[in-house]
Amino acid sequence: MANDGMFGDSCELDVADHMDADHLHEECGVFGIFGHPDAAAITALGLHALQHRGQEAAGIVSFDGARFHSERRLGLVGDNFSKRSVIDQLPGTVAIGHTRYSTTGETILRNVQPLFAELAGGGFAVCHNGNLTNGLTIRRQLIAEGAIYQATSDTEVILHLVARSKRNRFIDRFIDALGQIEGGYAFVGMTNKKLVGARDGLGIRPLVLGRLDGHPILASETCALDIIGAKFEREVEPGEIIVVHETGEMESLKPFPIRKARPCIFEYVYFSRPDSIAGGRNVYQVRKNIGAILAQESPLSADVVVPVPDSGVPAAIGFAQAANLPYELGIIRNHYVGRTFIEPTQSIRELGVRLKHSANRAVVDGKRIVLVDDSIVRGTTSRKIVKMMREAGAREVHFRIACPPIKYPDYYGIDMPERDKLLAATMTIEEMREYLGVESLAFISIDGLYRALGEPGRNNAAPQFTDHYFTGDYPTPIADLVSEGAKQLSLLAEAS
Amino acid sequence: MANDGMFGDSCELDVADHMDADHLHEECGVFGIFGHPDAAAITALGLHALQHRGQEAAGIVSFDGARFHSERRLGLVGDNFSKRSVIDQLPGTVAIGHTRYSTTGETILRNVQPLFAELAGGGFAVCHNGNLTNGLTIRRQLIAEGAIYQATSDTEVILHLVARSKRNRFIDRFIDALGQIEGGYAFVGMTNKKLVGARDGLGIRPLVLGRLDGHPILASETCALDIIGAKFEREVEPGEIIVVHETGEMESLKPFPIRKARPCIFEYVYFSRPDSIAGGRNVYQVRKNIGAILAQESPLSADVVVPVPDSGVPAAIGFAQAANLPYELGIIRNHYVGRTFIEPTQSIRELGVRLKHSANRAVVDGKRIVLVDDSIVRGTTSRKIVKMMREAGAREVHFRIACPPIKYPDYYGIDMPERDKLLAATMTIEEMREYLGVESLAFISIDGLYRALGEPGRNNAAPQFTDHYFTGDYPTPIADLVSEGAKQLSLLAEAS
Amino acid sequence: MANDGMFGDSCELDVADHMDADHLHEECGVFGIFGHPDAAAITALGLHALQHRGQEAAGIVSFDGARFHSERRLGLVGDNFSKRSVIDQLPGTVAIGHTRYSTTGETILRNVQPLFAELAGGGFAVCHNGNLTNGLTIRRQLIAEGAIYQATSDTEVILHLVARSKRNRFIDRFIDALGQIEGGYAFVGMTNKKLVGARDGLGIRPLVLGRLDGHPILASETCALDIIGAKFEREVEPGEIIVVHETGEMESLKPFPIRKARPCIFEYVYFSRPDSIAGGRNVYQVRKNIGAILAQESPLSADVVVPVPDSGVPAAIGFAQAANLPYELGIIRNHYVGRTFIEPTQSIRELGVRLKHSANRAVVDGKRIVLVDDSIVRGTTSRKIVKMMREAGAREVHFRIACPPIKYPDYYGIDMPERDKLLAATMTIEEMREYLGVESLAFISIDGLYRALGEPGRNNAAPQFTDHYFTGDYPTPIADLVSEGAKQLSLLAEAS
Amino acid sequence: MANDGMFGDSCELDVADHMDADHLHEECGVFGIFGHPDAAAITALGLHALQHRGQEAAGIVSFDGARFHSERRLGLVGDNFSKRSVIDQLPGTVAIGHTRYSTTGETILRNVQPLFAELAGGGFAVCHNGNLTNGLTIRRQLIAEGAIYQATSDTEVILHLVARSKRNRFIDRFIDALGQIEGGYAFVGMTNKKLVGARDGLGIRPLVLGRLDGHPILASETCALDIIGAKFEREVEPGEIIVVHETGEMESLKPFPIRKARPCIFEYVYFSRPDSIAGGRNVYQVRKNIGAILAQESPLSADVVVPVPDSGVPAAIGFAQAANLPYELGIIRNHYVGRTFIEPTQSIRELGVRLKHSANRAVVDGKRIVLVDDSIVRGTTSRKIVKMMREAGAREVHFRIACPPIKYPDYYGIDMPERDKLLAATMTIEEMREYLGVESLAFISIDGLYRALGEPGRNNAAPQFTDHYFTGDYPTPIADLVSEGAKQLSLLAEAS
Repeated sequence: MANDGMFGDSCELDVADHMDADHLHEECGVFGIFGHPDAAAITALGLHALQHRGQEAAGIVSFDGARFHSERRLGLVGDNFSKRSVIDQLPGTVAIGHTRYSTTGETILRNVQPLFAELAGGGFAVCHNGNLTNGLTIRRQLIAEGAIYQATSDTEVILHLVARSKRNRFIDRFIDALGQIEGGYAFVGMTNKKLVGARDGLGIRPLVLGRLDGHPILASETCALDIIGAKFEREVEPGEIIVVHETGEMESLKPFPIRKARPCIFEYVYFSRPDSIAGGRNVYQVRKNIGAILAQESPLSADVVVPVPDSGVPAAIGFAQAANLPYELGIIRNHYVGRTFIEPTQSIRELGVRLKHSANRAVVDGKRIVLVDDSIVRGTTSRKIVKMMREAGAREVHFRIACPPIKYPDYYGIDMPERDKLLAATMTIEEMREYLGVESLAFISIDGLYRALGEPGRNNAAPQFTDHYFTGDYPTPIADLVSEGAKQLSLLAEAS
Repeated sequence: MANDGMFGDSCELDVADHMDADHLHEECGVFGIFGHPDAAAITALGLHALQHRGQEAAGIVSFDGARFHSERRLGLVGDNFSKRSVIDQLPGTVAIGHTRYSTTGETILRNVQPLFAELAGGGFAVCHNGNLTNGLTIRRQLIAEGAIYQATSDTEVILHLVARSKRNRFIDRFIDALGQIEGGYAFVGMTNKKLVGARDGLGIRPLVLGRLDGHPILASETCALDIIGAKFEREVEPGEIIVVHETGEMESLKPFPIRKARPCIFEYVYFSRPDSIAGGRNVYQVRKNIGAILAQESPLSADVVVPVPDSGVPAAIGFAQAANLPYELGIIRNHYVGRTFIEPTQSIRELGVRLKHSANRAVVDGKRIVLVDDSIVRGTTSRKIVKMMREAGAREVHFRIACPPIKYPDYYGIDMPERDKLLAATMTIEEMREYLGVESLAFISIDGLYRALGEPGRNNAAPQFTDHYFTGDYPTPIADLVSEGAKQLSLLAEAS
Repeated sequence: MANDGMFGDSCELDVADHMDADHLHEECGVFGIFGHPDAAAITALGLHALQHRGQEAAGIVSFDGARFHSERRLGLVGDNFSKRSVIDQLPGTVAIGHTRYSTTGETILRNVQPLFAELAGGGFAVCHNGNLTNGLTIRRQLIAEGAIYQATSDTEVILHLVARSKRNRFIDRFIDALGQIEGGYAFVGMTNKKLVGARDGLGIRPLVLGRLDGHPILASETCALDIIGAKFEREVEPGEIIVVHETGEMESLKPFPIRKARPCIFEYVYFSRPDSIAGGRNVYQVRKNIGAILAQESPLSADVVVPVPDSGVPAAIGFAQAANLPYELGIIRNHYVGRTFIEPTQSIRELGVRLKHSANRAVVDGKRIVLVDDSIVRGTTSRKIVKMMREAGAREVHFRIACPPIKYPDYYGIDMPERDKLLAATMTIEEMREYLGVESLAFISIDGLYRALGEPGRNNAAPQFTDHYFTGDYPTPIADLVSEGAKQLSLLAEAS
Repeated sequence: MANDGMFGDSCELDVADHMDADHLHEECGVFGIFGHPDAAAITALGLHALQHRGQEAAGIVSFDGARFHSERRLGLVGDNFSKRSVIDQLPGTVAIGHTRYSTTGETILRNVQPLFAELAGGGFAVCHNGNLTNGLTIRRQLIAEGAIYQATSDTEVILHLVARSKRNRFIDRFIDALGQIEGGYAFVGMTNKKLVGARDGLGIRPLVLGRLDGHPILASETCALDIIGAKFEREVEPGEIIVVHETGEMESLKPFPIRKARPCIFEYVYFSRPDSIAGGRNVYQVRKNIGAILAQESPLSADVVVPVPDSGVPAAIGFAQAANLPYELGIIRNHYVGRTFIEPTQSIRELGVRLKHSANRAVVDGKRIVLVDDSIVRGTTSRKIVKMMREAGAREVHFRIACPPIKYPDYYGIDMPERDKLLAATMTIEEMREYLGVESLAFISIDGLYRALGEPGRNNAAPQFTDHYFTGDYPTPIADLVSEGAKQLSLLAEAS
C-alpha cells in the first residue's frame, strides 16, 4: 500500500529505474478467447506469455452469460492471476485481458484495462495496445459535449465513441467508432454476446488469430498461442475487424478503404518475443540476421562478442557467427531486480552500484570486445555498461547496435523520451562514440535492417514498415500534435 | 485483498452481520472545507465525527491550486486517514470528504466517493448523502444518449448532468443538474475554484454550515463541527445552494420554487449523533422526550428499565426518569465487534453465540424489565435479545419502542429491507408481541413522536417531517418505481 | 505492514494515544478448552469476550492429535480470527488462546502468546495473564546458564523452567517451575495430552473454570463462558493447578502451602467486564455500590450526574440513584476511534481536537454537574474532559472518583506509568482539585471501597484484597526490584 | 497473507513449482560488513547479488552502538529491502544479512535468519549457509537438558551452543560451539562489538573476505563484493574463524586441526553465479570447460547446440565452440515466472502449459539438436523439455549433461529429493535415455569434471572436492543419520 519511495520521484537517484528508463517500452499486450470453459485461466496464461509487453498492471474481464466480472491489478500477471481464488472470480466462457506498460495516463488502478461501460444494449469491455494520434483531440471534443472521463487512458475514447454512436447494432457502433480514430492500435473487446478484435489500417500494432480446440483466440503475439498449445491461424489484417458471434462463428469485416500494411519495425528489433512469428518471420532469426548484417556492414578485428543481456543476445549470436568470433557472456544479468532499489545515499551512489548488470571479468579482461545491444535511446545505460567493461579490463570496446540511430519520437504506442533526450537526435555518430567512450560505434543501416527482414531494402516510395524513429517518415498525420497544449488534460492524481 | 468469508454469502450463518442487518442504515456523511491550510486533515477529523453515518468506506479529494488529489479507501476513517503519510497525499486548502454506507451500488473502490470528472472547464469532484428517486430513470436516459457509467452509485448521475448541461458557468450547470433530479440529498462538491453544497427542496437529508477561523465548512451534522471546534452557523436551507467563491465569499442561491421543509424524522430517532443539533433541537433531548412520552402513553408496572445499547440508551433514560423506575445496564455491549465473525458450524450456531450483546444477569434475574430500543426493523435481533433476557432470568419483559411501527420502505437514502421483511408491515402489534415473546409491546404514537420533537402533533395536511416509514405518506413522487425493471442495470462485478 | 506514524514516536502529538495512555491497562486475557470439536472457534469467541483485557494482539494454539498449530496476529480478535480460513488452520479438539496488552516486552509478533517450546517429552504451549515479580531475576540466572531467550515477554520464563526441570512427568515439571516463580499470574497451557491452568497463590489474577457440553474450559472471566453459553463451575482457587487429562478427567492439585486469597481489587474497579462474576460478586453491582457509597461519603448539591464513558457509567448510575439526581449523557463517546489519529500540525493541535469524547452541550450548559470516572491516573485526560465540560457551559463541575487515590505502582500485571507520573502520588487532593479545575473532588475511601465489595471494611491485619495501588501494602516481596538495572535486558528491536 | 494455493500442496498440479522442484537448491547466501556508515544498505545490495542462492526470505540485523535492529521478510531482497523506510529501521555501522532457501525448517518468519539471542554478555546475531550433519543430534541432547527451541532451523543450534559454553570471552564460546558441530557451513555473526565469520573444516560451503573503503566484508561469493565495488581479498580458509574487533582490526583464528580442503563441486556446476571467482577459478569459465570436455568425451554429429536456459548456457557455449557447432536459442525462458501459477483444471493440464520455457520452433524444426543442461535431478523437467523440442520439430535430440549422474543425497546444505527420486540412482544411462526420449544421452565423467576445474583428474585417495552426489564418498560421518527417527522433531506449524 504505502509505497514510500517505490513509485516516488526518485529519478536520478534510482539506479534500477534509471536503467529501465533507458529502454523503449511498449504499452500493452492484449488477449481474448471465446467459448472456452476455462476462459479466464487461459487468458491469464496468454497474458503471462505477453508479460514482456507490459509489467505494470494487468486485468481480465469475463462474461458468464449473465454478468460481467472484472479483476484488475497492479503488478505482474503471475503474481496476481496465478491463484485459483482469483480466477474463480472470473467465471464464464468468454474473457479478454490486458497487460500494461503505461505511456499515456498514470498507472493507477482506475486506468488499468480492460475498461468497461454499460451501453444502452448492455455491457462492453475493451482493451487496447497502441496509441491514438487523435485521442486527445476527440477527448476534448467529447468533454465539450458533456462526456465524463474517469480514467485517463486513451482506451476510454473508444468506449465513448461506441456509446455515442447513433447506429443501432453494436457492431455498427464499433465500426462507427473505429472510423473516427487514427493511430496504431490493436483492440480486443467483448459484449455479452460477442468477442471482437480490430487492428489499425496500417497494421502498426500486431494482432494474431488462433484457435484452441476450435475456440477463437485473439492475441498480440504468437507466443501467447504457443503457451497454451493453441494453433496459429493467421494475423489479423491491417484495417480488419474480427467478430466472433454468439454462435462461435467468426466474421471478418473490412469496412474501411484498404491500405498497404506498414507494421512497426520495432516489433522485430525489440518488442516481440524471440519465439514469436510476425509477418511470417521468426523474430529470433530476424535479430540474428541483423547481427550478421551488422558484422558485414562494420567489420572489425576483435577477440570476443559480448551481448548486452537479454535484448542484445540474438543479434550478438548472429554477429559472432558471421564474424567468426567467439560469443561469450561478458556481462551477467541479475533477473531478480525489481522496480527500484535503495535510493542511495551519496556514499552509496558513488560506488556505482550495478543492480542489473555485472561484468564477468574473466571473459573481458585484456580483450578486444564487440558489445552488441538492440538500441541506444538516451545512452546513459550504454555508457555505464561500457565503463563497466573498461573497469573489468576490456582492452578495446567496439559497440554495435542492432537498429539504426533513433532520432524521432513515436506516437503509435511506444514509450520514448522526448526528442532532445534521444542521444542520436542530438549527436553525430562520432560524438556518440566519444560520449560512450568506445573505440568504434556502428549502427545497422536502414537498408541493412530491411534486408534482415527479408526485403531487398527500404522502398522509399512505399515503405514496407513503420520506421519513423529512424527516418522521420510518419505513416499518418498526428492530429493531437496540432492541437496545442494537448498534453495536460488529466488533473486528478489518485493513489490507490 | 483476499476476503474469504469476510464479505461472502454468509447470510444466516453470520451472527454479527445478521444483527447489523436488523438495523436501519443511512448512506453517508459529507464534509467540505474551503481555505484552510490543513484542509484534508480537518476533513478527516470531520469524517471521523460522522463515522456513525457510514463505516464501509471513506474518501477525500483536495485541490492544491494546480491539481486535484484523491484518496479513497474501504474501511474506517480512523484506520485509513489517520496517518500523516496519507494526509500528505492530499495537499491544498480546499477539500471535501465522504463516509459511506452503501445502499445503491456495490461497495467497491470504484464506487467510493467523492467522484471526480474532468469537465470542459476543469475538474469537478462531488459527494452525496441521500438517494435520487429518479436516479435510475435519468441514468437510463443518459446511457441511451451515449453516456458512459463506470461507477454504479447514484452520485455519478449528477456528474453527467453537470457535464451535459448547455450552460456556460459551472454554477449554472450545477443548478441545471439539480433542477433535473428528485429525492433526498445533500451534495458537497468542489471545482478548482469553488466549494459548493446543495440540499434537496424538502430538506430531507441534513446539511449544516459552520466556520473554522472564518473558513466555511459544510457538514452533515453539527458534531462534525464540534470535533474541530468550528462554530455552527446555520443549517443549509431546503432547496438552498451554497457557493463558496475563490475569494472565500459565500453566496446563497435559491433558484428553485421554495417548499415547506420536511426533514427526515429518522435523523432524530436513530441516525444523528446524540450531541448533534438538528432543526434547533438537541438529538439526545429529543430521544429522552420520546422515552418520557412512551412511559406516559403506555404506563406499566415494572422493576427496572434496560436499554438495548447503544441506540436505545437516551430513550431508556427518559423513560426511567418519567416512570420513576431505576435505569440499569441489563445488557452489556461489546464494542470490539467487527463486521463479521466466524461462520459458525452447526454445533456453534446452536450455542446461540452473542457477539455484540450479553445479558448482565445480576440486573435482570427475577426482575420485571422494561426493554427500550430505538426501532424494530425485521425483529430478528429484538427476538434474540428478548430470549437472552429470559434466559438471564427476567420474570417479565415489556418492550417499548422509540418510534412508531415501520411499515413502508424508504427511497431517500435509508437502507431498509424490502417491505415484506419489515415486521410491522406483516404483523399486528399483538402478533409482534407474541413473535417477540414479551409480556407487553408498545410503540410511541405518531403524534407522541411529533410532540417529542416539540410539535403539537402531526399536521396531517402539511406534515412537518418526512415520516412515510410509519405513515406511507411519501413527500415526493418516486419516478424510478414507475420504470419497470429499474433495479438491475449494473452488470459489472469487480473485486479490488 | 508499513505503519509510518501509526506506532511511531507520536507521544504528545498523538491525542488519541495520549488519552488511552491515561488509563490503566491489564496485560491479558487467557482461555483454554479441552475436547471440543470446534476448539479453536470456541477459543476465538472466548477471546472476543475478553477483548477488553488486551487489544494489541491475540493468538491461538491448537493440537490436532499429531501436530500443534499456531496463529498469532497483531490486532483485534474479531479482525484476525473471524474467518473460517484462519480457524481452519487450527484443527484439533484442544486449544488455548490469549489476548494481549503488552506491559513487559515490546509488542511484536515474536512476543505474541501463546508461546511454544519443544520439550524432551513433546511440545508445550502456554499463555499468561499477570506479571512475575522475579521474572527478570530468573531470566538473568538462566541466561547466565546458557538459556536463549527469543521473545522478550515474561511468559518465556515458565517455558525455560519447565524445560530445565529435572523431574520426569510433565505435570511435575510444571509444578517445579511454578514453585520458582512469584507474582500475580494465571497460566493456561497445553501439551499434546493435557490442558493445564494455574493461578498464583494469592489469586491476584483471575481464572475461572467452566464447562461447555461437559468439556472443561479455563478463562480469565465468566463473560468468556457466557458468550458461548458455557456453564460457570467455579473459580480456580489461589495456588491451585488444574490438570485436564487425556481422558477428559479433571484433577485439582494444590502442591504449595495454602495462603489466604487477596485478589486484585482493580479487577472490580476497572478491568473486569461489568457482566462478569468475580469472587461471587457481580462486577456491575460492585461499581454501582461504589457510586452509591461515593454519594454518601461526599454529598453535594448538583443538577445532573454525568459519567465519563464507558468506564465511569455504572458508578455514575449508582451515584445518581443514591443521590436522587438525574443521570444524563453529558459526554458522547466515539467508539470508532482507532489506535491513533493524525499527528496534528501545530494549527490542528491548537484546536484541541476530541477524537474520543465530545460534550453534549444541551445536557451540560448552565448546569452543576457531577462527573463520575473510574480512576485518575496521570490526570491529563481528566483535566481535558473537565475543560470540555466548562466550554460546554457547565456552571459547576464536581468530580467523583470510583477508587481511592492511586499512589503506588503495580508489579502484578497492571500497566501503570512510573510513580512520579501518578497524579495522586505527587499532589494532595486539594492540589489535584485545583489542577483539574473543579469545584470539588472526592475519591471513595478505602473502607468505602471494601464495603462496596460486601466487606465490613479493610482488615488491615489481613487485607482481603490486593490494594497496594492505594495503600502501598504489597502482597509479596518484589525480587526484581532488588536486582539493580533489571529493566533493560532486551536489546533487539524487531519490526514485523 | 492468505496464500490460497500459492504455497499449497499443489505438487503435480503445479507446473511451475514442479519445474523448480526438479532443480537442486542451496540454502542460503550470507553477508556481513563492519564499520560502514551505510552498513544495512550495503548488506541489502550484497544480498541482492546473492539472491540466486535463496529466494524465499531474507533478513538483516544491524547494531547501532546501543541496540540491535532486525528486519526479516519473506520474499526477494529487492522487494523487501529496496526502500529507504526499511533501511532506516536498520541503523548502525555493523550489519549481517541472509538470503534463504529453506531445506530444514519450514519457511516461516520465525525461521528467517539472522537469528538472535541475548547472551549473558550481550546480544548475538548469526546467520548460516549450509547444514550441520549432527544438528538434530545436538538439538535432541540440548532439549533433553532443558533448552528451548523456537525456530526449527539448524542455525539455532549454534546459538544454544554459544549460550551454554562455560567459557567467558565471546570468541572462546564461539570456538567452543564450532568445535561441537559437524557438516558444511559458513557462518556470519555479530555481537555488539564484533563481526565474526567461520567456514567448516573442509571448506564445503564458500565464504570470501573483501574490503570496501577498508571496511571488512564477509560474503558467500565474490559477486556480492563486485556489486558494491568492494575489493576481493581472499577466501576464508577451511576451518578458519575471522574476527573483526571493535577497533576494526581483523584477526584470523585456526583453533581446530587443519584438514585438506574439499569444497563442494556443485558450487561450480550450478550454485555460484557465473561471474564469481571460487577457488581461484572463474565459474563461467569452468562451466565452459565442462561443455568443451563434454563435447570431447561424447562427440556426435548434429546441427545446433541448444542450451536449457539459464543454467545450461555456459556449458552450451563451451560445447558449441569445442564441437564447432552453431549455438542457438532454441528454448526461450520467461523470466516473469513467479513461484507458482494457476493450478490447472484437468482441461488446462492437458494442454501441457509451459510457463517457464517455450520452444523457438524456427531454430529447432527439422534439426538435429544437442540439448545442454547443468544436471538431471528427477528428470521430469528434462523429459518435458525434450518433448517440447520434439513437438517443435527437432529431428534428433542429443542430451548432454554438465555433471556426472547424481546418485547420492547431500547433507551439507543442498536441497535434493530423496534418493529414490533421483533419476540416476534408479536407472542406467540407457534407461534414462529411453525415459527422456532422446537419441543419445551423455554426462561428463567425474575425471572430466575435475579436469574442467584444472585438476589432472580426481585424486581418489584424497579427493580435491566434495563430490558424494556422484561418488557416494561423503567427506564426513553423518551423525544425524545414525540417530533414528531424527527427522520429525518439529511439531509446531505456524502460519504468519
